[in-house]
Amino acid sequence: MSVAAYLAARLRQLGVEHLFGLPGDFNLALLDALLDGTGLTWVGSTNELNAAYAADGYARVRGFGALVTTYGVGELSAINGVAGSFAESVPLVQITGAPATTAARAGSLTHHTLADGDFGHFARAYAEVTAAAEVLTEQHAADQIDRVLAAALRESQPGYLSVPVDVATARVSAARLEIPLRRPESDSQALAAFTAALGEHLRGAQLTLLAGHLARRRDLGQVLRRIADSGLARVAALLGAKGLLDERHPASLGVYIGGFTADDDVRQAVEQAESLVVVGAVFSDLVTGMFTHDLDLTRAVVLDLHQARVGLAEFPGVELADAVAALADLVDRAGRAPLPAPAASPVPSTAEPGPLTQAGLWAALQDWLPPHTALLADAGTAYYGAAGLALPEGTELIGQPIWSSIGYTLPALLGVQLAEPARRPVLLIGDGAAQLTVQEFATLARRHPAPVVLVLNNAGYTVERAIRSPDAVYQDITPWAWPELLRALGGEGVRTATVRTGEQLRTALADSAPDRVTVIEAVLDRDDVPPLLGAIARGLSATRS
Amino acid sequence: MSVAAYLAARLRQLGVEHLFGLPGDFNLALLDALLDGTGLTWVGSTNELNAAYAADGYARVRGFGALVTTYGVGELSAINGVAGSFAESVPLVQITGAPATTAARAGSLTHHTLADGDFGHFARAYAEVTAAAEVLTEQHAADQIDRVLAAALRESQPGYLSVPVDVATARVSAARLEIPLRRPESDSQALAAFTAALGEHLRGAQLTLLAGHLARRRDLGQVLRRIADSGLARVAALLGAKGLLDERHPASLGVYIGGFTADDDVRQAVEQAESLVVVGAVFSDLVTGMFTHDLDLTRAVVLDLHQARVGLAEFPGVELADAVAALADLVDRAGRAPLPAPAASPVPSTAEPGPLTQAGLWAALQDWLPPHTALLADAGTAYYGAAGLALPEGTELIGQPIWSSIGYTLPALLGVQLAEPARRPVLLIGDGAAQLTVQEFATLARRHPAPVVLVLNNAGYTVERAIRSPDAVYQDITPWAWPELLRALGGEGVRTATVRTGEQLRTALADSAPDRVTVIEAVLDRDDVPPLLGAIARGLSATRS
Repeated sequence: MSVAAYLAARLRQLGVEHLFGLPGDFNLALLDALLDGTGLTWVGSTNELNAAYAADGYARVRGFGALVTTYGVGELSAINGVAGSFAESVPLVQITGAPATTAARAGSLTHHTLADGDFGHFARAYAEVTAAAEVLTEQHAADQIDRVLAAALRESQPGYLSVPVDVATARVSAARLEIPLRRPESDSQALAAFTAALGEHLRGAQLTLLAGHLARRRDLGQVLRRIADSGLARVAALLGAKGLLDERHPASLGVYIGGFTADDDVRQAVEQAESLVVVGAVFSDLVTGMFTHDLDLTRAVVLDLHQARVGLAEFPGVELADAVAALADLVDRAGRAPLPAPAASPVPSTAEPGPLTQAGLWAALQDWLPPHTALLADAGTAYYGAAGLALPEGTELIGQPIWSSIGYTLPALLGVQLAEPARRPVLLIGDGAAQLTVQEFATLARRHPAPVVLVLNNAGYTVERAIRSPDAVYQDITPWAWPELLRALGGEGVRTATVRTGEQLRTALADSAPDRVTVIEAVLDRDDVPPLLGAIARGLSATRS
Repeated sequence: MSVAAYLAARLRQLGVEHLFGLPGDFNLALLDALLDGTGLTWVGSTNELNAAYAADGYARVRGFGALVTTYGVGELSAINGVAGSFAESVPLVQITGAPATTAARAGSLTHHTLADGDFGHFARAYAEVTAAAEVLTEQHAADQIDRVLAAALRESQPGYLSVPVDVATARVSAARLEIPLRRPESDSQALAAFTAALGEHLRGAQLTLLAGHLARRRDLGQVLRRIADSGLARVAALLGAKGLLDERHPASLGVYIGGFTADDDVRQAVEQAESLVVVGAVFSDLVTGMFTHDLDLTRAVVLDLHQARVGLAEFPGVELADAVAALADLVDRAGRAPLPAPAASPVPSTAEPGPLTQAGLWAALQDWLPPHTALLADAGTAYYGAAGLALPEGTELIGQPIWSSIGYTLPALLGVQLAEPARRPVLLIGDGAAQLTVQEFATLARRHPAPVVLVLNNAGYTVERAIRSPDAVYQDITPWAWPELLRALGGEGVRTATVRTGEQLRTALADSAPDRVTVIEAVLDRDDVPPLLGAIARGLSATRS
């Protein structure tokens, strides 16, 4: 089979059914072979950064993603998206069609190069932001593909494959496809030792779990649910795992954000836990309330991707999923306790009179948000407002609390909806952020019957205004006619509304039908911010002066 | 003064009056200082790639450009644009606001990083695509700024400055600002030796000059004109210098594209020149008709950025501008000859009946194109169609024959028009290309009274269709309502028309008034291509199989 067909087969084994990207003269033969009877479907993107964001969204739901670009111009346009996948631990592969091996060896003055004879610049740039990067050779292509995909799986990070035009169609043996690529297994002795130590450590203690975004990436929602159902543990989440355990579950504590945690009882439950188990967490600045978390990790159980720790005892070689499974087994054997009373459903509020405020916006969303929503919120007021929602059943919050690249969520929503069409996609995004990636709305509106897109129009970069110099000229953006624009991009089926009061917003949300694309432009005050964003902005401001 | 103020002063000395970019929490203090009473004007871009393209367009006209982004997310989004500036030899500086020196040293888990404690990834990526890259330190900031800007000037390539938040406002002495940065001077002995050898070499011969894009970057239009006026030389251009010497000048041969040159007399005039002088050329694939050029460079005079060659004798240390000045002096001393009769102005044609064709499109543009136009044409049918135009007075063709990043020209037009508002900006761009960067039209339409934008709507990536698999699914794009879209982006003042015949196109062009923004959507057959693009596509196709 061809190298491209081999790559396609590997991607299919990893659950990939869609490829995002753009064609270019160096990837046409590669694309033909990737799409020819392999079961992979092409999703043409409007530009490469958007393709990378879409592949990232797809991978968050499916477990793996892929994008295809052309050499130089295409791959470099995508690199911010791929770096974001690294920061946020999303496994995918960036596949680039590249000039022929002979042209590279000769240092030919080829278009899409720097015209300096060096064909290695872009692979070296990608090596900075990927777990593994390879320029394929005819001799070792299958090995190289497996090495890169396996590293991406293992580290839950992106890999990079540069495929010269001659290598794309070179022949390779299909034999090794019989052994699918898998995540690494735990060292069995280390796992046994860890399990024993864990049993000792937890004996009889009140358990509190704190889940981070790696728990989501390792798909640990089910097993966390099993632990929560026991009644023996309560579960808090860092922002990157918000909703991984249903927030209406009686054992759910909601979100912990260090000193910025909205509910003091939640903060104390985590910080004063009798026995804290940290599951796949990275304690970065924004998710810890600018490092205001107060956790004694030397006494905690800390489970990372490839290592577990019980107090000060480290167990390298224990994989995260195995460690949590061991914990679930221990909990099962400990029996069950009655679950606490479930948190009361939030009481529906009524719209405040007067112009729409951030408070009114989030109240209306809280009341409307249906269960089983694929909820994406962009960095800024959208994400840190959504952080305060009590999410309904089957609803997680998807965003970038670490990488925080504005505009990410609009193309990411495309990937999420293709990965899981059954959940209704809802996007919350600011006007400043939406300007960066708006054209992908055209693809989105044509691929799903009924996404809901809320553009929070507050006349510019409100999050930056909250940090410094709110009246500076660089905080302003060009005003756009959002409804007209999104209709021109999305086609006839797009229904739009502009709302300026809470009442209008509630009506527009209620009108969003499950068979049409809904766009709501919500006009908000320039300087109004959700409380959590205000606290973060003050924290960021303090570290900048 | 502050480091940022020092940088601003250096940029002003280089002729920079506008900064392109987006704010982010790591560059707010930097922006405040860059814009505070320095004479620099902020041009907020819709995303960072577009900002890089705009800065590139600006630099091509002004001689230097600058963009400002934030760390990680912002700078990586811009890197394709900056790499394009490297490939196309455009001097500018990419300025990134970065986390504090102390945070970087501590490996803090900061947002916009890869959350791996390594703050050097992005500067190393930029080192791959810039002539010089520095992360500023408080101790050496002024030195570092000067080193990077001087390298950008010297090599006519981009530089990179990463400015930690603490360094942006650190103090630095203003004393060295008294000595402006300049391009390097020639070694005087080498220049004298070259001049003598040149005189010997050219004695009495018929001169033919072949100008490449570096002649444009070193601003050699005037001196080439002086040589052309002598009547002793004829001047051909590679695509990157098309229009640098007025194409209506009697001594102009127009464009040489190797074996793909449209006019056989022009090809022969260059290839069989009695004495050929190559001025700042890079013989890359697309500009040489896929390497079909047939030039005996061992007998020619070849002038590069920092070296001159006369036959086989090399003169390192001779700067391009000085070498051409020496040539002009020699020509002056040789007297003057009568100029050939100027080429007849192209005879206006009339519109063909029936649907608009590529032939009809270019004929209509040839008849309409006014003098003193800033003409940009995007990679694909637009650029290789425009290559066949006989340009009117004061009109150059701006595009990317080496880097060929689709979508480049739309934001680049913004930079060009700000750099030189007196020339009327005209953009030719395909629908596939325009999708990548369309949002910058919003900025464009509000910053110039009357740009003309032609969207060549041929239902997808026609250039790729011409190379391979014309019916493949990846060649299609989502259809957009272009007039409605561009009105929604550009505001009330935008006048739009959709044309389907040559007659309609001619009417729409004639109606484009000098006081309003004009958008023309020209609907063309999916597979119709200009002859030059057809030849290039066949050449590319051959190297891919």
